[in-house]
Amino acid sequence: MSTTSFSVDLRDLHFVLFDQLAAHEQLAAIPRFAELDREVYEATLAEGERLAREVLAPINAPGDLEGCSFDGQGNVTTPKGYREAWEVLREGGWLAPSAPSELGGSGLPFAVHVCLSEMLCGACMAFMMYAGLTVGAARVILGHGPEATREMIARKMFTGEWGGTMCLTEAGAGSSVGDNRCRATPTDEPGVYLLEGEKIFISGGDQDLTTNIVHLVLARTPNAGKGTKGLSLFMVPKYEFDAGGALGARNGAKVLRIEEKMGIHGSSTCVLGLGGDQPCRGVLIGQENQGIELMFLMMNEARIGVAVQGHAIAAAAYNYARGYARERIQGQSIREARSQDAPSVPIVQHPDVRRMLMTQKVYAEAMRSLLLRMALVVDREHATDDPAERERLRGRVDLLTPILKATCTDVGFEVAVGAVQVYGGYGYIGEYPVEQLVRDVKICSIYEGTNGIQAMDLVGRKLRIGGGALFIDWMQEAQGRLAAATEAGLAGPAEAIGKAVQLLAASAMHLAGLGKARKVEAAMMQAVPFTRMFGLVLLGIECVEQALVAARLRQTRGDEPLLVGKQRNLEFFVAAILPQAIALGKSIQSNDESALDPALFA
Amino acid sequence: MSTTSFSVDLRDLHFVLFDQLAAHEQLAAIPRFAELDREVYEATLAEGERLAREVLAPINAPGDLEGCSFDGQGNVTTPKGYREAWEVLREGGWLAPSAPSELGGSGLPFAVHVCLSEMLCGACMAFMMYAGLTVGAARVILGHGPEATREMIARKMFTGEWGGTMCLTEAGAGSSVGDNRCRATPTDEPGVYLLEGEKIFISGGDQDLTTNIVHLVLARTPNAGKGTKGLSLFMVPKYEFDAGGALGARNGAKVLRIEEKMGIHGSSTCVLGLGGDQPCRGVLIGQENQGIELMFLMMNEARIGVAVQGHAIAAAAYNYARGYARERIQGQSIREARSQDAPSVPIVQHPDVRRMLMTQKVYAEAMRSLLLRMALVVDREHATDDPAERERLRGRVDLLTPILKATCTDVGFEVAVGAVQVYGGYGYIGEYPVEQLVRDVKICSIYEGTNGIQAMDLVGRKLRIGGGALFIDWMQEAQGRLAAATEAGLAGPAEAIGKAVQLLAASAMHLAGLGKARKVEAAMMQAVPFTRMFGLVLLGIECVEQALVAARLRQTRGDEPLLVGKQRNLEFFVAAILPQAIALGKSIQSNDESALDPALFA
Repeated sequence: MSTTSFSVDLRDLHFVLFDQLAAHEQLAAIPRFAELDREVYEATLAEGERLAREVLAPINAPGDLEGCSFDGQGNVTTPKGYREAWEVLREGGWLAPSAPSELGGSGLPFAVHVCLSEMLCGACMAFMMYAGLTVGAARVILGHGPEATREMIARKMFTGEWGGTMCLTEAGAGSSVGDNRCRATPTDEPGVYLLEGEKIFISGGDQDLTTNIVHLVLARTPNAGKGTKGLSLFMVPKYEFDAGGALGARNGAKVLRIEEKMGIHGSSTCVLGLGGDQPCRGVLIGQENQGIELMFLMMNEARIGVAVQGHAIAAAAYNYARGYARERIQGQSIREARSQDAPSVPIVQHPDVRRMLMTQKVYAEAMRSLLLRMALVVDREHATDDPAERERLRGRVDLLTPILKATCTDVGFEVAVGAVQVYGGYGYIGEYPVEQLVRDVKICSIYEGTNGIQAMDLVGRKLRIGGGALFIDWMQEAQGRLAAATEAGLAGPAEAIGKAVQLLAASAMHLAGLGKARKVEAAMMQAVPFTRMFGLVLLGIECVEQALVAARLRQTRGDEPLLVGKQRNLEFFVAAILPQAIALGKSIQSNDESALDPALFA
Repeated sequence: MSTTSFSVDLRDLHFVLFDQLAAHEQLAAIPRFAELDREVYEATLAEGERLAREVLAPINAPGDLEGCSFDGQGNVTTPKGYREAWEVLREGGWLAPSAPSELGGSGLPFAVHVCLSEMLCGACMAFMMYAGLTVGAARVILGHGPEATREMIARKMFTGEWGGTMCLTEAGAGSSVGDNRCRATPTDEPGVYLLEGEKIFISGGDQDLTTNIVHLVLARTPNAGKGTKGLSLFMVPKYEFDAGGALGARNGAKVLRIEEKMGIHGSSTCVLGLGGDQPCRGVLIGQENQGIELMFLMMNEARIGVAVQGHAIAAAAYNYARGYARERIQGQSIREARSQDAPSVPIVQHPDVRRMLMTQKVYAEAMRSLLLRMALVVDREHATDDPAERERLRGRVDLLTPILKATCTDVGFEVAVGAVQVYGGYGYIGEYPVEQLVRDVKICSIYEGTNGIQAMDLVGRKLRIGGGALFIDWMQEAQGRLAAATEAGLAGPAEAIGKAVQLLAASAMHLAGLGKARKVEAAMMQAVPFTRMFGLVLLGIECVEQALVAARLRQTRGDEPLLVGKQRNLEFFVAAILPQAIALGKSIQSNDESALDPALFA
């Protein structure tokens, strides 16, 4: 029977960070990171891996089984072991790896943060949600909160003394944030409002890990306009606090109940009542009516975080499945299937199991590469003094964020489902780790903007910025990279993927044409297929890049399995995944409007 | 908020059964069914729909939450309401609709049984598993059990007084049934053996619905050969019984524990100990070493049953999602997205929601059509006196069974996942019905032979029978049907799907060529993609057929939404699904062997 222990592909993380992206060199050019080097990064990853394995992985399955509990009085208890794990991560500064060290963070590059997130979320996604939302909220407060206290608050959050949440959704306002009805009435005290309403699906709306919780709440001030533009953002603490952070009275933001759900049972999903019995005080963040803009500062980062979750679960699932397939003995080699005396073999030897594992490997490794490339763009964007360069880098992040969020979460789910299939019947039972991963990762396609919303953001907004400027900038770079690969001896696969890039561009043009012809429904119906196609093409380009780097390294390091694997990844991608991207391109350009017939779904 | 009530597409069932397949006419030609007519069938479906809605749907979510419990003494308690529902279905004769009426069944055609299964499994799959396995085991006993008692036993099972199970899997023998180690030692009593061993994953291994349970157990007699050919089949009752069926002593087949699992919580998944503390008596079914052959009688029927489960969940999920999308008001029409004053609309109006629903609709309706066509083949096969005709029909069922099992279960899962996405955040929480469907249906890709095993059965066995005779017979019929569609005015889609049929044939030839070249691993690595491609092509042909029938009916019945929908289904299939089948064909013929590199997964 398998040991089914959690593991991390540290060697592949090193390959991507150092061999492929030369992250240590790119980061050395950024003043904030000038004193960090490869050795520091490797030591950080090694310690992160240990924490993931020793501290978080052991609480994942028990936390899933136990779930959170609610006392009916507004208080949530997290599963056994969560508080102890929070303390361990808190003391080591692992909750906010890329927050400024002068404010209690660890001052690491975002790219290293993403590596750590892969490990820690892969080990226990439900637990890490508390950290992710806390850090996201802290950044908004640090940038736009009350000047006198913003640093104090952010420090308490970055260090995990206080928690944070984002409160957008209401029962009648999920994807349509603009339908928010929560009200905020000014008081005599400047900047202080009384909030009334009910928010739902609030992750970490209450928990017993931190002494206080700061909710960021979207609400509408009196006489504000309809839609998203009439929304303002408020900082709503669980407990009031003074300028030094000493806690005062309980505020009127209270959890009314928690949801039973498919997965992430260790993460409390709360209905949060504001006002009602007890006044709920909130402090305006930024200006009135600036709420959606500020919330999107947090949301954009959160979307990258969700893409990382999708990948983290994929990586964990693949590693479990690979480990299981190597240990589980069953059936004879297909070459000896007719011999009664042939020995039984590990199932990793069966071709269909290898096909499943290969699919998982290619996706997990290509997503890792894609996310870390993106993370370095974020690091460079934050660091540059050149406004034009910052705008270009920001544009790249803006373009890719919805694609990565949608692709890594949908593919992450598929990889987890594939891991269940490798385990067979054992994959379906709770004794083994993979069915939980399927249930946990499913939320990633839904929250922080459903993947349908991501696709509409891409097709309806990002593709249209500057007349397609972001897309054209990306495409030129992609074609350059593929041309370099052709030059370097990978002509076959590089050209195959280049054709997909062309088809992607033609698909984008086609959708733009539909828009111009006022066939906006027909265009938006293709938004998800287009986003998926774009995501697959991005993954394919990473496969090319990795194969190129691996080929170069093999000249000095020989045929290390990891390096040989990169060539195989590319072959598999071109043979088995690229045709799906091409098929999507054909669908997108089909002009099909069948689903729009009003006779349907009646 | 949505009512989220369970519903059945009765109108589409009528369309398929009567308008498309003329099942009532086909069945009228079968003597056993000569006295049945369309009116009887419609009344039966109407009552089945009522039972599904009123009796089973209400116990589905509570049973999922409560699950089965085990007392540590071998006894399983099913969730609240299961016993009452069992009595209702038992009294009405709904547990074994197609079993002979002279033995307690309802004597209905298998095609009608499949319609009822769609409704009843869709309403509560976990509950219906007890019935399905009982009926399957009863059929084996009726055909091959002890002559003196087989009818008595079968009657008790068909009427739901006794239950039944199939016991193949052991901890070291899942997909490799031939590795079974359970032992059977003859006693002095003829035909009676003492069994020793442990079976796992036994659905319904114990329950509190029936007074007795008859396990069908694979075990190895002394000196029997290795592999599947040394296995014999035994009838192992929970309680001994006499020739009249009066119960005697408790037999030594006892549940040792039940599994926690991802879904189907209402169905007990048991570890069954045989022997040990207490002798376990079993009666040989058929001859020694005939076990696998007899078990496959049950297994083949069970595989069709699992395909029906996959479709049933898809149909239920689509109906939930459609109902929710029509009721859930959120967001403005995309045409008015910039107007703050535009009214909010039901989400069914949003193009991406329509795309998701359309995908679900096409799959659910095409699977229904495919399964009922297959069910009628089974009915005709059972009825015919002509050995050649029987062999031909049997061959068709043999060819299609693994494809339908794999396709309907994988697609059923995808449809359920799509339904969750339509619900958005609400889809993820237990208060709404769809996340349970995802968890329940996932087992269908695994049990009764994983979908990888189905694919190996198709490519390694079924395609090779008679030098490809089954495939050629199917292809000729398919081409004939497509030619007729072309003739009747559907040239575009029929030819597009015809090209996919050609590519499927070329893919089959390609795999055969790999086999001949002794590249058996490379061939088997494509077994699952080939099976999926075949399944998609089958679904496409059903779309063509349905569009053809609908076009004819529109001449007299006008543009009924159901009829218009069939034309739209075909358009959507050709635009959005067929390209995926083509892409698979390209993958299959890629000669890719990347995943076979021994450097990988080490």
